[in-house]
Amino acid sequence: MAGFDTHLRAMVDRLGGALAATLMGVDGIPVETVETSDLAAYEGLDLSSLLVEYSSVLTQVQRTGDVFAAGPVEELTIRSERLTTLIRPVSSEYFVALALGPNANTGKGRFLLRVHGSALVSELS
Amino acid sequence: MAGFDTHLRAMVDRLGGALAATLMGVDGIPVETVETSDLAAYEGLDLSSLLVEYSSVLTQVQRTGDVFAAGPVEELTIRSERLTTLIRPVSSEYFVALALGPNANTGKGRFLLRVHGSALVSELS
Repeated sequence: MAGFDTHLRAMVDRLGGALAATLMGVDGIPVETVETSDLAAYEGLDLSSLLVEYSSVLTQVQRTGDVFAAGPVEELTIRSERLTTLIRPVSSEYFVALALGPNANTGKGRFLLRVHGSALVSELS
Repeated sequence: MAGFDTHLRAMVDRLGGALAATLMGVDGIPVETVETSDLAAYEGLDLSSLLVEYSSVLTQVQRTGDVFAAGPVEELTIRSERLTTLIRPVSSEYFVALALGPNANTGKGRFLLRVHGSALVSELS
């Protein structure tokens, strides 16, 4: 698991305002999670429960895309008032999620997710 | 309804690769939709059915954000291989969606959605 952790930590360390990065099964069970000290400042935010719910959102979006010919889902972004969550499927069974505070650079987050997401794929196989 | 149509058309006209813009109730019933000629080239894509499904995705994401203290949803982006869909709630009952082909500028789409979304709010009230 050391490899997963390294990639997740590299993402949050390179991005100011990052709260957490996680590798998760599409069933909502986390494989590895890295949280930052910023997350502790988020009063009342239950990020792990939120990500479990978002995993079912991802599944729904993927099924919908298949049925109506939009093609495979490459990225799902949920921007809320207190939190932006970037979700990227890395295989048919796993996805990587990156949770950002409102002041983080979302574009850089997407870039890091793409780069480290690809690296994670090769470690998963 | 002329006002809604004007804002939706302004979005798709100012953005190369835009496929459609729609003002829709959170129950999935469209109020007004503007489609471009590019959409006709998308073989097999059932955009209106896709948007109905996405409206239920938005509802699920909003409920989840309320429960786990992420705050109100400001934007939902679903990037699939053939299609990127930007969804922005404009009131508690309505959202605006902008569907883009893979080569469209998503950043400009988000900007247009924010500007015209705000304008639509004032016409809805």
